[in-house]
Amino acid sequence: MSTPRTARASVLERFNAPLTVREYPLPRELEAGAALVKTEMAGICGTDVHLWKGELPITLPVILGHETVGRIEQLGPGLEIDWSGQPLRIGDRVAWTSATSCGKCYFCAEKRQPTRCPHRRAYGIGYRCDQPPHFLGGYAEYHYLRPGVNVFRLPDDLDTAFVVGAGCALVTAIHGIERTGIEWQDTVLVQGAGPVGISALAIAKTSGASKVIVIGGPASRLEMARRFGADHVIDIDKVREPAARIDAVRGLTGGYGADAVLECVGQPAAVAEGMEMCRDGGRYLVLGHYCDAGPTALNPHVITRKQLRVIGSWSSEPRHMKAAIEFLQATRDLFPFDQMVSHRFNVDRCNEALATTAAWNCAKSVIVP
Amino acid sequence: MSTPRTARASVLERFNAPLTVREYPLPRELEAGAALVKTEMAGICGTDVHLWKGELPITLPVILGHETVGRIEQLGPGLEIDWSGQPLRIGDRVAWTSATSCGKCYFCAEKRQPTRCPHRRAYGIGYRCDQPPHFLGGYAEYHYLRPGVNVFRLPDDLDTAFVVGAGCALVTAIHGIERTGIEWQDTVLVQGAGPVGISALAIAKTSGASKVIVIGGPASRLEMARRFGADHVIDIDKVREPAARIDAVRGLTGGYGADAVLECVGQPAAVAEGMEMCRDGGRYLVLGHYCDAGPTALNPHVITRKQLRVIGSWSSEPRHMKAAIEFLQATRDLFPFDQMVSHRFNVDRCNEALATTAAWNCAKSVIVP
Amino acid sequence: MSTPRTARASVLERFNAPLTVREYPLPRELEAGAALVKTEMAGICGTDVHLWKGELPITLPVILGHETVGRIEQLGPGLEIDWSGQPLRIGDRVAWTSATSCGKCYFCAEKRQPTRCPHRRAYGIGYRCDQPPHFLGGYAEYHYLRPGVNVFRLPDDLDTAFVVGAGCALVTAIHGIERTGIEWQDTVLVQGAGPVGISALAIAKTSGASKVIVIGGPASRLEMARRFGADHVIDIDKVREPAARIDAVRGLTGGYGADAVLECVGQPAAVAEGMEMCRDGGRYLVLGHYCDAGPTALNPHVITRKQLRVIGSWSSEPRHMKAAIEFLQATRDLFPFDQMVSHRFNVDRCNEALATTAAWNCAKSVIVP
Amino acid sequence: MSTPRTARASVLERFNAPLTVREYPLPRELEAGAALVKTEMAGICGTDVHLWKGELPITLPVILGHETVGRIEQLGPGLEIDWSGQPLRIGDRVAWTSATSCGKCYFCAEKRQPTRCPHRRAYGIGYRCDQPPHFLGGYAEYHYLRPGVNVFRLPDDLDTAFVVGAGCALVTAIHGIERTGIEWQDTVLVQGAGPVGISALAIAKTSGASKVIVIGGPASRLEMARRFGADHVIDIDKVREPAARIDAVRGLTGGYGADAVLECVGQPAAVAEGMEMCRDGGRYLVLGHYCDAGPTALNPHVITRKQLRVIGSWSSEPRHMKAAIEFLQATRDLFPFDQMVSHRFNVDRCNEALATTAAWNCAKSVIVP
Repeated sequence: MSTPRTARASVLERFNAPLTVREYPLPRELEAGAALVKTEMAGICGTDVHLWKGELPITLPVILGHETVGRIEQLGPGLEIDWSGQPLRIGDRVAWTSATSCGKCYFCAEKRQPTRCPHRRAYGIGYRCDQPPHFLGGYAEYHYLRPGVNVFRLPDDLDTAFVVGAGCALVTAIHGIERTGIEWQDTVLVQGAGPVGISALAIAKTSGASKVIVIGGPASRLEMARRFGADHVIDIDKVREPAARIDAVRGLTGGYGADAVLECVGQPAAVAEGMEMCRDGGRYLVLGHYCDAGPTALNPHVITRKQLRVIGSWSSEPRHMKAAIEFLQATRDLFPFDQMVSHRFNVDRCNEALATTAAWNCAKSVIVP
Repeated sequence: MSTPRTARASVLERFNAPLTVREYPLPRELEAGAALVKTEMAGICGTDVHLWKGELPITLPVILGHETVGRIEQLGPGLEIDWSGQPLRIGDRVAWTSATSCGKCYFCAEKRQPTRCPHRRAYGIGYRCDQPPHFLGGYAEYHYLRPGVNVFRLPDDLDTAFVVGAGCALVTAIHGIERTGIEWQDTVLVQGAGPVGISALAIAKTSGASKVIVIGGPASRLEMARRFGADHVIDIDKVREPAARIDAVRGLTGGYGADAVLECVGQPAAVAEGMEMCRDGGRYLVLGHYCDAGPTALNPHVITRKQLRVIGSWSSEPRHMKAAIEFLQATRDLFPFDQMVSHRFNVDRCNEALATTAAWNCAKSVIVP
Repeated sequence: MSTPRTARASVLERFNAPLTVREYPLPRELEAGAALVKTEMAGICGTDVHLWKGELPITLPVILGHETVGRIEQLGPGLEIDWSGQPLRIGDRVAWTSATSCGKCYFCAEKRQPTRCPHRRAYGIGYRCDQPPHFLGGYAEYHYLRPGVNVFRLPDDLDTAFVVGAGCALVTAIHGIERTGIEWQDTVLVQGAGPVGISALAIAKTSGASKVIVIGGPASRLEMARRFGADHVIDIDKVREPAARIDAVRGLTGGYGADAVLECVGQPAAVAEGMEMCRDGGRYLVLGHYCDAGPTALNPHVITRKQLRVIGSWSSEPRHMKAAIEFLQATRDLFPFDQMVSHRFNVDRCNEALATTAAWNCAKSVIVP
Repeated sequence: MSTPRTARASVLERFNAPLTVREYPLPRELEAGAALVKTEMAGICGTDVHLWKGELPITLPVILGHETVGRIEQLGPGLEIDWSGQPLRIGDRVAWTSATSCGKCYFCAEKRQPTRCPHRRAYGIGYRCDQPPHFLGGYAEYHYLRPGVNVFRLPDDLDTAFVVGAGCALVTAIHGIERTGIEWQDTVLVQGAGPVGISALAIAKTSGASKVIVIGGPASRLEMARRFGADHVIDIDKVREPAARIDAVRGLTGGYGADAVLECVGQPAAVAEGMEMCRDGGRYLVLGHYCDAGPTALNPHVITRKQLRVIGSWSSEPRHMKAAIEFLQATRDLFPFDQMVSHRFNVDRCNEALATTAAWNCAKSVIVP
């Protein structure tokens, strides 16, 4: 059963317009260090909705999808081990980081902020698909991995649905919480119960927090938060006033606010509200603002007076993905990330998949080509 | 030459109205741990202007002044050593922290954020003067130090003008920069060339920074910044557009922005501008917002994308004052904090003194009763 | 049922000689801030054996016992709330820190190392009992709490056996691990399976470690380690050669050694062995050397070459005891600290109790007066 | 003036035997990313003496010399910019790191300890010279830079003698002090006045230390320490007893010991002595033990009781060399690293050069081929 000559992909050709299914030739010969992967499952991230709406500056046409698992179909010369040093073989099930840092620039080597490397381009976001090797996004039957890709062989006992269900949200949360620092017995508040919020909850629960509160909605997401071990949930559809929500959080934290607040919402207004939910001298992670949702009214005096540390965190490094895979494997019984995958669509139905995600009420749609 | 029965003070009785000189009885007998001090020099802080305008919630009448040096006139029973353990005697020249934390509360003992102790009340701000012991602010001939005060004997070779010239700005800067962390060879940008900015400049210069840039105005303050060792100054009266100022800072920092930006302005709009002057992965200290100047438009996406650490810092601890005094003494030839004292007034002319400070163009007015 | 006039205590009068039961008068009147407590249970710590043998420089006679729980019998004037701010009443069950720091000295206030305060004197160690108020140790029917004591009201649903079973080992471990820092998904090795080792295991398990290995003996202690969730145990009675033990640890940690090694043994030779069990760039906590067991052969080159961070930690602060009590209460089902209490003796049988502890094979003996 | 066909090198063929001058062919064609450099000056490091004595496990024959400056004679294809991104041209004067980490392994990418990368091999230490390209050490007329080398173009106003005078000691000190952390106004003790000690002094002086004490000898080195700004020096030839030296340090540090002690000696016994010179809760850097001088008697109880942080640091990263070059350039007037170069020899006299260094009393010998 050899690799076909062509394969199909769902292509974003115009913003706010339906994706189109296109057929492109598969590469005949692989560059050194590259790989060709048969897509098993591709996640749809909230960012994909923003991309589809044209809210980020990308060049079309693009095959969306930056949270993908596949099986190795071909290996280019020299690609013999995965990022962790394990041997790679045809047929191996793998995941990979959506972008690769250069390792040499000012940000990578001098300031050790590799996620800010200007040479990063993300699969499913930063590559046009109208030129070879075409297949540089997840919503397609195949995926090309360029030389230098950080690829991870998945353990046999870890279902694909866990990896795609966790998606880029989990590695984003791991990185952000690493920068924030959870101290043993901290009370932690997670703002937002979407994929990033659920991931942040799981990391906080296993980082020494004595109590993790999740504030968000709708109810179905909060139910998922409970399944992931939230000690308390606050439903913003029921507690509609920010002042009441701040009171609720303070009531659960001895009157002081949480030691650490992890913003996983992406709505600017959540930040001002969340800072008031943080105790004086606490930490506030701004994690949900991967997309630019514009400015909001914030009072710098609050940061001074409450003596806060406010932390930003961008994307993630390969070591976070390694940790994520090991974590998913070790905590399968505790954190049902596979249940995050609520809707499956084939490559012809990517528009439905995107629309489902855009409604923000499902956990996560995926493409199973 | 015994202590008189009464002494004079300049009293804030109504907001936005002239201060009134009042005569109050001096305490006959001191509580255990208290002291009576004859005022040598009292600094006028920018905060005093805000207090006078009624911009902070205080209860009148009040004797303003929280940056004071005096000589010990009487010592209450048990007050035998200063904060550092040095013996205290009548006639010693001393300074003290404006507030005292309780050492036992949630913020002091559990979270180690003593500057957020709810039991703190500041001399010159938080005490009414119409009841004994009356003299709890700097604009007066005498000052009463309550039991528990953190008092520091001043070294003989350190002029009073250095201590009052540095004022609360220096300890505020020491604390804020401690929280921010200057790494060896960092490029540092100081926003603001008032007392806090000048202090931050001095601390940054002696904390390992390879280059310190000061942005602010007017020209006289920038001239002071140069005298304090600023490697570059940017005059906001000449570079009037934020975009041009951001370009100027980036041009001085390899195109990236500074490793650490220290906001010492107090104008909310400076914060958004300053974050753009900070390199990705850098640190941004919000230090100038002791007073509440209201909200400003800030974009949380900037914190996420630039992967910033934003730090707030409130007031200071006694250990910062100990360090400040030693620093002033050791660096007299390098940092002419005494030259910050530009205008001297006696206790009858406190209104002129306040007005001079309110014009924001002098370095610092002081009261020499 | 009023307080009796006298009470009995077991007194260490001469090193290496049997303790003697003495009867002392109870205080008639309490100082302001003091309390009289009726002993419920007093733990016997390994340090007590060292004290009994004269291995630490203390002045006799002494009532041993620094891990005690009791009920408030009398409250001195002004002692109305516990350390956390909860009201204190006659009959309340309480624990307290064995020593109190002054809060004002160089170590407390300037360098923020309050456990190194020179004014600390520990109950059960640092007070002679042949003068009033006599009852300053745990092996007695009553315990006097001096003004300034850090006292904690115990929650009703937390059995005394949990608190004494955890003893000073738990707070010591909390402090030490705070200084060491466990990062999310760290592999952790605990050297030693005595009370400190078991406590360190519990803290590491709840601090984000992905895997905790315990090395020690005898088998009964390792069985306890398994009950507390050790992922792997290595029995030093079976793996008798250091080189083989180092190999065993490396085999469980990908060949590299653990990210963090927590020494809870107290035998100097364990330190050299343990450093080889730590990965390059890892952290090594020297926690078990509260007593001075003398020097050992260590190679500084190992610290340089392996680029280690080696951390010492001494005793604990009151905030660690607050956290410990909350932790014990919240994790009763996970960590059976009450099962650490293996042998109970009354005040007449303190010698047997000490001898049992001195055999090092039981978990923990206690006095129930 | 074209590159000759052969060039001369001084070769270590047998341990403890004189070096031999050999003539080897220069490479005809350069690999992609490689460069050929004409040696301007090569430093002799104390490690070279240990290598010559056979105290480190290396394979002979070797051209010693890992602190070298030269001019680019030829550039291999693709080597167009230096590590900082500056263009590289024939004739440029350059320095380079002695080893290159792989950037991909467990230590480089997962644990971010690139100096522990197992793929590192150092010029002048880890390469045999009896096979092409032969010229992989400093004691030679030419030096071959292998693909992947971290090369730095030197600023025109920075004399070669500064760069070689600072040598690997400076980057080692920069890395070690980064790991240790000097806080603003720390008192710092440097143990040792050799090249590493002098470098540590310069870094400490510019890192915020309020006072730097150097302990060591002989007098000529202490004189150099004074020239580099040491606030106090203690001559171990005059204060011969460790107890007296500990007293001397405590006398200069308020009785407590230094906040940070930087060991730059390499004698194991210095470590036990130095820990006693460190205040409780302070930091102790073990930096001088690049070579294995064997174990010494250390008491782990001291680490526990004094609550120390003991830090190891191995070699350095390229970013430290970038910082070093900028620092040398900016502080020429303050720190006369060029004066460290006390003896110059040509390539025929390498044995004299080594012998001079082995006498430990000169500052630094260099080879000027």
